[in-house]
Amino acid sequence: MSKLWQKTTNVNQLVETFTVGRDRELDREMAAFDVLGSLAHTAMLESIGLMSADDLALVQKELKEIYADIQNNNFTIEDGIEDVHSQVEMLLTRRIGDAGKKIHSGRSRNDQVLVDLKLFFRSRIKEVVEATDTLFRQLIILSEKHKDVLLPGYTHLQVAMPSSFGLWFGAYAESLADDLEMMLAAWKITNKNPLGSAAGYGSSFPLNRTLTTELLGFERLNHNVVYAQMGRGKTERIIAQALSSIAATLAKMAMDQCLYLSQNFTFVSYPEHLTTGSSIMPHKKNPDVWEIMRGKCNRLQALPNDVALMTTNLPSGYHRELQLLKELLFPAFTDLLSCLEMATFMLQNISVNKNILDDPKYAYLFSVEEVNKAVLNGVPFRDAYKQIGLDIEQGNFDPEKAVNHTHEGSIGNLQNDQITAAMNEVISGFGFAKVDDAIAKLVSESGSPKVG
Amino acid sequence: MSKLWQKTTNVNQLVETFTVGRDRELDREMAAFDVLGSLAHTAMLESIGLMSADDLALVQKELKEIYADIQNNNFTIEDGIEDVHSQVEMLLTRRIGDAGKKIHSGRSRNDQVLVDLKLFFRSRIKEVVEATDTLFRQLIILSEKHKDVLLPGYTHLQVAMPSSFGLWFGAYAESLADDLEMMLAAWKITNKNPLGSAAGYGSSFPLNRTLTTELLGFERLNHNVVYAQMGRGKTERIIAQALSSIAATLAKMAMDQCLYLSQNFTFVSYPEHLTTGSSIMPHKKNPDVWEIMRGKCNRLQALPNDVALMTTNLPSGYHRELQLLKELLFPAFTDLLSCLEMATFMLQNISVNKNILDDPKYAYLFSVEEVNKAVLNGVPFRDAYKQIGLDIEQGNFDPEKAVNHTHEGSIGNLQNDQITAAMNEVISGFGFAKVDDAIAKLVSESGSPKVG
Amino acid sequence: MSKLWQKTTNVNQLVETFTVGRDRELDREMAAFDVLGSLAHTAMLESIGLMSADDLALVQKELKEIYADIQNNNFTIEDGIEDVHSQVEMLLTRRIGDAGKKIHSGRSRNDQVLVDLKLFFRSRIKEVVEATDTLFRQLIILSEKHKDVLLPGYTHLQVAMPSSFGLWFGAYAESLADDLEMMLAAWKITNKNPLGSAAGYGSSFPLNRTLTTELLGFERLNHNVVYAQMGRGKTERIIAQALSSIAATLAKMAMDQCLYLSQNFTFVSYPEHLTTGSSIMPHKKNPDVWEIMRGKCNRLQALPNDVALMTTNLPSGYHRELQLLKELLFPAFTDLLSCLEMATFMLQNISVNKNILDDPKYAYLFSVEEVNKAVLNGVPFRDAYKQIGLDIEQGNFDPEKAVNHTHEGSIGNLQNDQITAAMNEVISGFGFAKVDDAIAKLVSESGSPKVG
Amino acid sequence: MSKLWQKTTNVNQLVETFTVGRDRELDREMAAFDVLGSLAHTAMLESIGLMSADDLALVQKELKEIYADIQNNNFTIEDGIEDVHSQVEMLLTRRIGDAGKKIHSGRSRNDQVLVDLKLFFRSRIKEVVEATDTLFRQLIILSEKHKDVLLPGYTHLQVAMPSSFGLWFGAYAESLADDLEMMLAAWKITNKNPLGSAAGYGSSFPLNRTLTTELLGFERLNHNVVYAQMGRGKTERIIAQALSSIAATLAKMAMDQCLYLSQNFTFVSYPEHLTTGSSIMPHKKNPDVWEIMRGKCNRLQALPNDVALMTTNLPSGYHRELQLLKELLFPAFTDLLSCLEMATFMLQNISVNKNILDDPKYAYLFSVEEVNKAVLNGVPFRDAYKQIGLDIEQGNFDPEKAVNHTHEGSIGNLQNDQITAAMNEVISGFGFAKVDDAIAKLVSESGSPKVG
Repeated sequence: MSKLWQKTTNVNQLVETFTVGRDRELDREMAAFDVLGSLAHTAMLESIGLMSADDLALVQKELKEIYADIQNNNFTIEDGIEDVHSQVEMLLTRRIGDAGKKIHSGRSRNDQVLVDLKLFFRSRIKEVVEATDTLFRQLIILSEKHKDVLLPGYTHLQVAMPSSFGLWFGAYAESLADDLEMMLAAWKITNKNPLGSAAGYGSSFPLNRTLTTELLGFERLNHNVVYAQMGRGKTERIIAQALSSIAATLAKMAMDQCLYLSQNFTFVSYPEHLTTGSSIMPHKKNPDVWEIMRGKCNRLQALPNDVALMTTNLPSGYHRELQLLKELLFPAFTDLLSCLEMATFMLQNISVNKNILDDPKYAYLFSVEEVNKAVLNGVPFRDAYKQIGLDIEQGNFDPEKAVNHTHEGSIGNLQNDQITAAMNEVISGFGFAKVDDAIAKLVSESGSPKVG
Repeated sequence: MSKLWQKTTNVNQLVETFTVGRDRELDREMAAFDVLGSLAHTAMLESIGLMSADDLALVQKELKEIYADIQNNNFTIEDGIEDVHSQVEMLLTRRIGDAGKKIHSGRSRNDQVLVDLKLFFRSRIKEVVEATDTLFRQLIILSEKHKDVLLPGYTHLQVAMPSSFGLWFGAYAESLADDLEMMLAAWKITNKNPLGSAAGYGSSFPLNRTLTTELLGFERLNHNVVYAQMGRGKTERIIAQALSSIAATLAKMAMDQCLYLSQNFTFVSYPEHLTTGSSIMPHKKNPDVWEIMRGKCNRLQALPNDVALMTTNLPSGYHRELQLLKELLFPAFTDLLSCLEMATFMLQNISVNKNILDDPKYAYLFSVEEVNKAVLNGVPFRDAYKQIGLDIEQGNFDPEKAVNHTHEGSIGNLQNDQITAAMNEVISGFGFAKVDDAIAKLVSESGSPKVG
Repeated sequence: MSKLWQKTTNVNQLVETFTVGRDRELDREMAAFDVLGSLAHTAMLESIGLMSADDLALVQKELKEIYADIQNNNFTIEDGIEDVHSQVEMLLTRRIGDAGKKIHSGRSRNDQVLVDLKLFFRSRIKEVVEATDTLFRQLIILSEKHKDVLLPGYTHLQVAMPSSFGLWFGAYAESLADDLEMMLAAWKITNKNPLGSAAGYGSSFPLNRTLTTELLGFERLNHNVVYAQMGRGKTERIIAQALSSIAATLAKMAMDQCLYLSQNFTFVSYPEHLTTGSSIMPHKKNPDVWEIMRGKCNRLQALPNDVALMTTNLPSGYHRELQLLKELLFPAFTDLLSCLEMATFMLQNISVNKNILDDPKYAYLFSVEEVNKAVLNGVPFRDAYKQIGLDIEQGNFDPEKAVNHTHEGSIGNLQNDQITAAMNEVISGFGFAKVDDAIAKLVSESGSPKVG
Repeated sequence: MSKLWQKTTNVNQLVETFTVGRDRELDREMAAFDVLGSLAHTAMLESIGLMSADDLALVQKELKEIYADIQNNNFTIEDGIEDVHSQVEMLLTRRIGDAGKKIHSGRSRNDQVLVDLKLFFRSRIKEVVEATDTLFRQLIILSEKHKDVLLPGYTHLQVAMPSSFGLWFGAYAESLADDLEMMLAAWKITNKNPLGSAAGYGSSFPLNRTLTTELLGFERLNHNVVYAQMGRGKTERIIAQALSSIAATLAKMAMDQCLYLSQNFTFVSYPEHLTTGSSIMPHKKNPDVWEIMRGKCNRLQALPNDVALMTTNLPSGYHRELQLLKELLFPAFTDLLSCLEMATFMLQNISVNKNILDDPKYAYLFSVEEVNKAVLNGVPFRDAYKQIGLDIEQGNFDPEKAVNHTHEGSIGNLQNDQITAAMNEVISGFGFAKVDDAIAKLVSESGSPKVG
């Protein structure tokens, strides 16, 4: 038995290779979530009289063992088995006989995949949020540590105004906090239960979808079953947009890093083993990590469009190519996580140049400062402006290279506490604990059957 | 005086035409918001002693008149004036002299544009949310009205299972509710105050950014001033993603409509004047409105990528091309609003075919139903399945063409109330009333100066 | 009479506004080409006996007058007239009565639009090729002029090897030559005649499509009529790809310019009136032109994807939203042409810094040179490498700051002649003269009717 | 020795894993081409006196053996070896000692990768062209075979005019011929020699780039060495655009197939084993192959944008992330080739429904035919039109269901010969034989050293 839907006909091998593609490989990542879905579904089936209490006990016991096997890396999709769903069913029937086949009553492969994907995405989103938070905290640490080190601020890539490492690191931290607002929206859309939608048109069985929603820790239902199916592709596109937002922040930071490491800036540096070079070009500190990160993150920025092009103008209802979206989304999570981790690692090792503004090319940075200082001392703006202009023209401009900015969010008042509070508030909105509790209960020995 | 920054040099006309582009035309749409920003900024300036109470009173009075003129369509950007900011300043100085020039103290054109854009986007987002809500309610009405009219449900574009117009309309309604989760995230990111960030590096004036935040009804600050500037381009990309999500829902519905209007489906129809045809091809009911909507919405789906390509790999700090994003975002709102309105209008005029399933090609739709019915009556699944398969093979399959689905979100239990509740909950998250109140207070005769 | 297909029904005004959109405005640009199509079509109709010689003479005379009016800017699409095709027909019937209506025999609006678009695109492509060639020649001039001025060459944004302005300018010239290969492919695909495909399925009239192909100067036919229609959207996407290639070259050059104008590089400069600045920041030379160019060109890079998203998954046959592609393509040509012209203009005014390599931070540029020099003098590579490494380490590295590169395409042997020859070869492939001749003949007084 | 550039420093393992990524896996595909590059480069080195004749003989002999090993699948990149270039060098030095290291004289890893990629792309493009040609010929066969079988032609997805399977199959054939015009442009841009550009700034060695151009069968040089490096990313984007054009044709055909297989059309069918179904839904013939093809091809349509986003706004010069483009391009070729092959395979098994137009819903297809017939018989158009309209209105419309289209490219005159001639002409433009001859000579026993 290699395919659930295959009854009498042998499908041409060529067709199978083409259509199944990388499913078996990618499905491996969904295995634990497939078992979770079956644990909830069977508990519900028993509650509505479509599975006996004895069968349920048998099935739950074995599913929990398979779940443990998966967690312990004792699980593979065997040769000749098409996908993870078939593999789990086969293990089950091998161990407990026909009772194992009943786990499919009242659902189709469509809503089984839908719920697996939602559970998988939830788990990966949580990892991304945590890795983003770790990077955020590293940025805040650096912002505080280097808050007094000045940096030229650029507009049009021209030296413009004094900035600081405090501002620079802190800006990327605050950017990540906003990015998680997008991720929170993606989470909310993901964290709704599609189980019970069957092939996308519901079932004549008296399913209790509210019960599976609760058992799986979903916030609420994808109510309308046609919409539950319509969420395939849409969920992926929205998650991709949320990932792309974090990626855009990282890519921009990586671009700054590559620039600031150039001999034309030398604002930051790294230990030798974190850059690459050559012994006869000792000045070279190639920022390969940041370049690769920029590239990976820019590719992630293209991801939502990839999903859009694959789903646009498909009429409602399931289409087989929706399966291919796994090939886009699954590595995207892995890539973004590796970028978040490498960014944190690199920033743990960054050194900043403390004497940047000693270079005379940055003197004019302070011209606006000097005008404002005069204004605050009562000189009319026009006069102050004219005087500084004249000083500069005549080579008499010798500014005090210090800034005294006090307003909210400025060099002297970074508001990193408020930014951290904002970050914490967004993260608390995910409610990961509730989800974790539900899953823990579902896989515990005295788990869900009692609920049903 | 045509440009704020232009002091002594005449910029080559060719350069000006190329760089200013459509700014004057697009800035017209931002005029009211520019005045709002100046009302808040000047009230704040007075509160920190950078503007006298008398000057403030003068300035506020005239700004409110300009605001009223803009609302009454008595405002143009005059020839030779570069942008809306210069036009407002010129009107002010023309009427009240040098006091008018003080409105720029402590800010640069950069944060002036930033705050104008945020206020503009807030206003347009509100319109989009309201138009989406109107369409949502029309879809719910149709879902309820036609909840008993059956429709073939397709998978792989193959006739698969019974569906209903109740499900079909309701699915798109629920999709819009999820789309607004994305818009809510975009709103939260937009609804933060960038004013006070000056050229992106803050100011040496003791600005009170918390005050302008409150006066303009922003939920909170873009704290870090470098991040405030970094929000340019990012805000646009995120808003574009949120718009694209609604657009994707509309485009999919439009595709369904075009298909269902085809002679090969004839599931829906429209009054003659809402389609186009030809007297010698009387069958033709070209769904031009839905086709144009599909096209406009697919273009909107490309919008986030347009923004990404224009902003990727730009180092931190302002770059002039960020100005061009107005050319992308401003028409996008207008286009999406027209699509939402046309979709509502068309759906107000839709007729559904009540006898679709009479066509014998849809008989097999009920095969799964019949198997399930037998199972619920106690027949083992395998036997039931074999029997129905045999009936079909022998031409004895004569299903009862009715469905009795009862679970949450199915044909017989659409849960439109719960979907509507979810929609209402998302919309309440925007907190439009708070914003409206702040703006009303700011432009009222006894407005903000008292606060300062 | 506002619409050709509208016989008895008044189309709801709302529908019309939504579906017609910007057609009237954009169609103005196609007017001359619409007349050309009709000149060829009617000559062909007469040749197959579907139009009398007298009618043809009348029609041709008036069409040529309308053509002249269009060329002289004496043409507008009147209020209430839907599009350019209706306007031309109306002018014709107003002047010569019912004979004017015969110009539509044997074609539909579909193939009329198709041929108009092809003729329009041909004309715009020619302009782009010419503007690209002008920029190319300016780059070659600069490459030759500054061939001895050295520049640091970067890898990983790190100072790496000696380069030169000769190489830098010449590289962009050669890039444009390759870009025109893509444009030539787009031209070949465009320069095929769709006329005679009617609504996309051909006609029962004995049309002579070979004749109209010849009259309009097309290289060959879009043979298959279904494919002729399928070219709509496809032609646009391919042209967009070709435009995007030129745009990518310009965008990269603009990025280099912005960097090289920065105080951290100062490799190039421009007269004051071509950059923008401020009197109290006299160092600031904001490269607004290059920034806007970078932005416009990056938007053009997104164009092919915009077209793809609007056309993907549309089944074969005409769909109304194909009309919207005009809104994407028409301004794209205008934008790219303005960028090509501005780039040429800016480069006519560029100054290069001749003493860049005097800065000690560029000394290590020559380390590889020195190793190679030793090798050419017979020192084993390892020894040479070790020696230079030691010199550098001990501060004894004092390279001769000159390069002696002689191979093809290197600093001392730019091969600009070969690059120019390659450019000329690509341009000659377009065969513009043949097209121009055909059009000139078609609109001349003693034009096409004699051919028929 | 794991890395060519690594002399004394151990690069942190984390950094290495992140930056090397999938290089080793992907480089395996480039191995043969890396050897070809070295064969040409060393022959050239000997010709300019930088390698002795004896060393050359040794190196060439071993390189040809490695080449044979690669062709026989006896080649792996060993653990601890970073990439294919290091592996080949290591094999060489292991066998022939220090002479093996000389293969890198006068080039850097940059131009080694550049030339490897060009040779690899050439090889894959040839495969794509051949597979496209095979599909083309299958389509022409079907077009001829079913030229008399009529099909409804749709506009706006509405039944519009008679079409035929001859037209339908032939249209996709002609589309592929145009797609190859784009591929030919990509080929021309690819088929230029970058070798000798070193790190992107040329070399002080007196390289003979014309010789390596000839030895490797390139059409000409990437002359300017800065442009040679600039081709990285650009070549990939342009190839991606050419692949996307073929993909767009396949995706559109796949969409038609999915529609035409639906119960609402039933225009085509396939043997049971090429679709998937279910025994209780015997009508279901899920077109999984076409759906997966549509999905894969739409992803390929997104590819050029992926490349654009990863390369936009990178200043000139090498950046490390360019390496990541291999992860995009390499699988793209494999995917497109599998799609081309599956499309050919499926079409070899397609059956067409010969009685489609018997269905009364298609009667009005012939209304325009009937009007035209009357006009050709001398009835004025208006009278003919009015009469047919009246017939239809009164239910008296009984058209002859045959079409007599004779013009070029119409149902009765498909011009498949001309379309085939056009295809042959495009393919001959590639000049594959010249390339194959050069490569054969290079790897033959009495190969290139004689040339040098």
